[in-house]
Amino acid sequence: MERPRHQGMAKNTYMRWRLPLVCLLWEVAMIVLFGVFVRFGPEADAHWEEEKKELNLTSDMENDFYFRYPSFQDVHVMIFVGFGFLMTFLKRYGFGAVGFNFLLAAFGIQWALLMQGWFHSFKNGKILIGVENLINADFCVGSVCIAFGAILGKTSPIQLLVMTLFQVTLFSVNEYILLNLLHVKDAGGSMTIHTFGAYFGLTVTRILYRPNLEQSKDKQGSVYHSDLFAMIGTLYLWMYWPSFNSAISDHGDAQHRSAINTYCSLAACVLTTMAFSSMLQKKGKLDMVHIQNATLAGGVAVGTSAEMMLTPYGSLIVGSISGIVSTVGYVYFTPFLESRLHIQDTCGIHNLHAMPGLIGGIVGAITAAAATEDVYGKEGFIKAFDFTGEYQTRTPSVQGGFQAAGIVVSLLMAFVGGAIVGGILKLPIWGDAAAENCFEDEVYWEVPEDEESDAYHMHNPDKPASP
Amino acid sequence: MERPRHQGMAKNTYMRWRLPLVCLLWEVAMIVLFGVFVRFGPEADAHWEEEKKELNLTSDMENDFYFRYPSFQDVHVMIFVGFGFLMTFLKRYGFGAVGFNFLLAAFGIQWALLMQGWFHSFKNGKILIGVENLINADFCVGSVCIAFGAILGKTSPIQLLVMTLFQVTLFSVNEYILLNLLHVKDAGGSMTIHTFGAYFGLTVTRILYRPNLEQSKDKQGSVYHSDLFAMIGTLYLWMYWPSFNSAISDHGDAQHRSAINTYCSLAACVLTTMAFSSMLQKKGKLDMVHIQNATLAGGVAVGTSAEMMLTPYGSLIVGSISGIVSTVGYVYFTPFLESRLHIQDTCGIHNLHAMPGLIGGIVGAITAAAATEDVYGKEGFIKAFDFTGEYQTRTPSVQGGFQAAGIVVSLLMAFVGGAIVGGILKLPIWGDAAAENCFEDEVYWEVPEDEESDAYHMHNPDKPASP
Amino acid sequence: MERPRHQGMAKNTYMRWRLPLVCLLWEVAMIVLFGVFVRFGPEADAHWEEEKKELNLTSDMENDFYFRYPSFQDVHVMIFVGFGFLMTFLKRYGFGAVGFNFLLAAFGIQWALLMQGWFHSFKNGKILIGVENLINADFCVGSVCIAFGAILGKTSPIQLLVMTLFQVTLFSVNEYILLNLLHVKDAGGSMTIHTFGAYFGLTVTRILYRPNLEQSKDKQGSVYHSDLFAMIGTLYLWMYWPSFNSAISDHGDAQHRSAINTYCSLAACVLTTMAFSSMLQKKGKLDMVHIQNATLAGGVAVGTSAEMMLTPYGSLIVGSISGIVSTVGYVYFTPFLESRLHIQDTCGIHNLHAMPGLIGGIVGAITAAAATEDVYGKEGFIKAFDFTGEYQTRTPSVQGGFQAAGIVVSLLMAFVGGAIVGGILKLPIWGDAAAENCFEDEVYWEVPEDEESDAYHMHNPDKPASP
Repeated sequence: MERPRHQGMAKNTYMRWRLPLVCLLWEVAMIVLFGVFVRFGPEADAHWEEEKKELNLTSDMENDFYFRYPSFQDVHVMIFVGFGFLMTFLKRYGFGAVGFNFLLAAFGIQWALLMQGWFHSFKNGKILIGVENLINADFCVGSVCIAFGAILGKTSPIQLLVMTLFQVTLFSVNEYILLNLLHVKDAGGSMTIHTFGAYFGLTVTRILYRPNLEQSKDKQGSVYHSDLFAMIGTLYLWMYWPSFNSAISDHGDAQHRSAINTYCSLAACVLTTMAFSSMLQKKGKLDMVHIQNATLAGGVAVGTSAEMMLTPYGSLIVGSISGIVSTVGYVYFTPFLESRLHIQDTCGIHNLHAMPGLIGGIVGAITAAAATEDVYGKEGFIKAFDFTGEYQTRTPSVQGGFQAAGIVVSLLMAFVGGAIVGGILKLPIWGDAAAENCFEDEVYWEVPEDEESDAYHMHNPDKPASP
Repeated sequence: MERPRHQGMAKNTYMRWRLPLVCLLWEVAMIVLFGVFVRFGPEADAHWEEEKKELNLTSDMENDFYFRYPSFQDVHVMIFVGFGFLMTFLKRYGFGAVGFNFLLAAFGIQWALLMQGWFHSFKNGKILIGVENLINADFCVGSVCIAFGAILGKTSPIQLLVMTLFQVTLFSVNEYILLNLLHVKDAGGSMTIHTFGAYFGLTVTRILYRPNLEQSKDKQGSVYHSDLFAMIGTLYLWMYWPSFNSAISDHGDAQHRSAINTYCSLAACVLTTMAFSSMLQKKGKLDMVHIQNATLAGGVAVGTSAEMMLTPYGSLIVGSISGIVSTVGYVYFTPFLESRLHIQDTCGIHNLHAMPGLIGGIVGAITAAAATEDVYGKEGFIKAFDFTGEYQTRTPSVQGGFQAAGIVVSLLMAFVGGAIVGGILKLPIWGDAAAENCFEDEVYWEVPEDEESDAYHMHNPDKPASP
Repeated sequence: MERPRHQGMAKNTYMRWRLPLVCLLWEVAMIVLFGVFVRFGPEADAHWEEEKKELNLTSDMENDFYFRYPSFQDVHVMIFVGFGFLMTFLKRYGFGAVGFNFLLAAFGIQWALLMQGWFHSFKNGKILIGVENLINADFCVGSVCIAFGAILGKTSPIQLLVMTLFQVTLFSVNEYILLNLLHVKDAGGSMTIHTFGAYFGLTVTRILYRPNLEQSKDKQGSVYHSDLFAMIGTLYLWMYWPSFNSAISDHGDAQHRSAINTYCSLAACVLTTMAFSSMLQKKGKLDMVHIQNATLAGGVAVGTSAEMMLTPYGSLIVGSISGIVSTVGYVYFTPFLESRLHIQDTCGIHNLHAMPGLIGGIVGAITAAAATEDVYGKEGFIKAFDFTGEYQTRTPSVQGGFQAAGIVVSLLMAFVGGAIVGGILKLPIWGDAAAENCFEDEVYWEVPEDEESDAYHMHNPDKPASP
């Protein structure tokens, strides 16, 4: 039985030839480019035995795989289960949330391996990859998942693939400017992943503004079980964030410290989120939207500084503040952004990623500027900020300035890039749905006819079916 | 549309000022105390490069981070997803199960870092933390999650925060008595976590006895999908329990052995649980309550002995027995405890943690008493039981005696502490719900109006809405 | 209220004495056999301190535990959550999917530790186990979980336990022939796990052919939320597959390389699956069945070759092809197998495991045959293929031939073994359900009466209840 609301569909959302064409075209391009450029790095190549001798390594344990693989797997879970399930809170968009996130991330990591590889792992005409490249590709895709949060439910899978292509490219350029040209530290990506990803996504959703979106208002909420599915995403993001922020830090104390700082920040963030969620609601009840999202702001906000000597109490302070800012954002800013600035932000990424990302960048700049040899030790100081080679005379306060510049560059890249990409996505060829069909899986998915809904239709055929 | 059953609410469950006040007050206290006391341990501090030289370490791999971080992340998942989702089995208390568990654990780990730090990591006026402290904080909070299982659905979030404050404190004292004064081995926490946590929770729920709880009997059960959500919790606890029991064991063989013993015990436990679940039911059908809970008893019951030379077949025996005891407990003891002893144990923690915890303590005492230099090797014997310094003359049988004493101490601490804390929680100021509103998320949470329930209300407005 | 459809049950599915008897009998057998045979290996034994000295190891890090434990835990999650939840897609068989998978895997790993131990870890009359044995036991059980996918919903738990007993035995024999007699490489188990497991399961389900299965056709589909539960399984399998394929590879570059190849293959597989899922459907909509399953074919198809120098672009090619083959299989082959060959394959394991497993075997044979000293390095070449001892003169092309022989042996073992075991399972003593009660949890489980269904029955008592 075809559901009545679909009769109103005016736009052409037929994917049969367009989606396969884009997917296959891009996969073929990936194969060709990988064939030309991508090879195993020395630690993954069968020549490793010779490499070990050359480097005087006595144990296979010195292979970077063992330093980073557990963190990589945690990051991998965050990208696919974390982001994927976090977005299943919508009552009728669970397939799209998990499925499209899966699609764009699977494409994005391939393209990111190439883009980041050209910038960072290019030797003698080849990109040499290892576990750190896999982590960085996942990171890069993380910024696309964030942007996806702003346009969730309002875009076709083709639009998502197009956005991924461009956003990964811009991400890599921005990352190169920050890490290589400005020599900025940002291991957990407060600037490169969160600030860039969120403001990029917000700009895109602004360009794609849908004036009649209230036509699908009934589908913008959650149901009881969809909120529980979303909590799976939340918890995996929350639990594994210490791995995220420490995954590409230097071996040893830096990875160790990043994990501790992030653990502390996140713990504090939960308490202030709960406090403000209850406080800002007339009835004093907790709101799952806040618990699902604002509890994670603490991870974002120490993304830059976690590997620095932020200290556990510093982390608690940052986490506490970001939980408050994020919750307040959900209550006051999101409605304001929508009504006044026409920014329709489905998941509230402005509150979870944009503002905490900015906090993260600023905290990073301050922490860097405040660094002393006393606190870090002589060698630790140099190692923590890579003050070697051409940077050996850089002082902490100068570093702080460059860190701040990194925020500005990320914002500019996000606004300009988001505007251009948003313009491209506005072309009427990508098969997005009409406003009354947003947030609805049936547009792009075969959806099983639930028995409940059949039953329901029998009694009340005018109302939409229930999940 | 307000649901009718809420009109009967007599108690004041309004959280708007109380909950934020408690959360913020405690977070501020944490920040101040962390500021005064908590610093990075040598392996997470930027001075690590100098530390390495001092200790003659040639590789960053020797940083404890790499020995324990993967296990830490598994334990972290057990606390937040494992316990959180295990308790979502109730049809209308999923938000409370996952959300309150999240809240109390996030607060508890901060307070545990301090309490355990003062007892175990205090040097020159500072608590020096590293990955092992994070694991221990999670462990400590695990005992609170266990106690939460007994009072699930019957308490306000403020009561949970108050209980967490006190229970973490008592846990740390008890742990100090056992590990430092009695020199007891308990790496997987059969005594410190499970026995203490469970009997503490059972005492609290006894004090908070609600004579009219049958008024919310219709909400004490599960629905089809809530049972599947609970299985997510079960499986993560089950799969990661080998990491739990081995997380803080000595490097090398002890961690390795703990994981193997736990793996074996848990596998056996599943079979005996299934057997008795079917056998004790007239129709011979399996009961999800048993599968969700009793299958885990095998992990609890080898918590003390897993790092000892329990042997794989010893583990199978312990796991088999504990699965039987636990399942029998669900069928016969839980109703008895409720009707005769007025102990209302929502999740049946008596069967999953209390009895298996006692078994674990006893098995640990026996295994320790039976240890010989022949089985452990001369060095292994000393290392396994830390028979150095003032304990170098302790014999296995004496160790067995002290292990047994550890059980008794844990029980006493649980009963006395639980009685006091239960008394505090009985004060009428914490905002708990009336009996007819127990096991119901709407008391403390914004709950989405499901379309099903709207639909349902139209036809039959007298019956409660369905999830 | 007893549901009317059950009045039609003709077969005796009463489990009360049969299931407990089988479970307990086998657990006792396990205990006895473990008592006689299984001991800790040197790296898990308390004598490790002495072992370290003997082997001149300076660090506990050299214990195999640290090389493999993180991968082991990922594999563990794949077996219990991955396979368990992947099969929850059926609307009324979620308990059976997760619960029976749990039961058979928990039994299977014990029996596999013994069977594989006798073949591979037997020294001086004892089986010496360590973390690699745990991984191999999980692998072995993986092949049973695959076979379970073909008969899902149509078998009693006793049949599953009987099948597990025999299949683990046959798996171990087949594995011994391949790895030891043919000296074949198959670290990710394309042949030993997937090809064998799938064709075994398909043969069993052919023997158990049910001509009247359309009587339970209404229960063979999914509902909205059951599809989301299944996606949990899918994503964990997908994310952790790099750990699966690298878990037992040689330390160092081989583990590293396996993970990278698998990561690449899986990413490509998602894009071609999405493309063909849309392309092969008249309306161009995506089908969750394909997304849940075919996206994983890329992991299966590089199971043999992942640890070889397949190269990242080679992996993309293999992943792309297997996604296409698998999706096409779901659309065209599965209906054909059912209608013409009477192979009722509930989960479509032919598409996810059988065909991609064959591809994996073939790709492995080709990759091995194409190996050169130039690509692998002199030492790397010998190490990668273990061309030492009696095999030191084996050439790549001969190795390729033996790899191909491994496929044939696996197929033969699967067909012959599956036929015999299928015959045993056909005996009318195991308590399987009648055709009209297939895919229905109520046959073997206590299922909570959902309020929705009560409500529903009130209005329309003739239709089946909804989950």
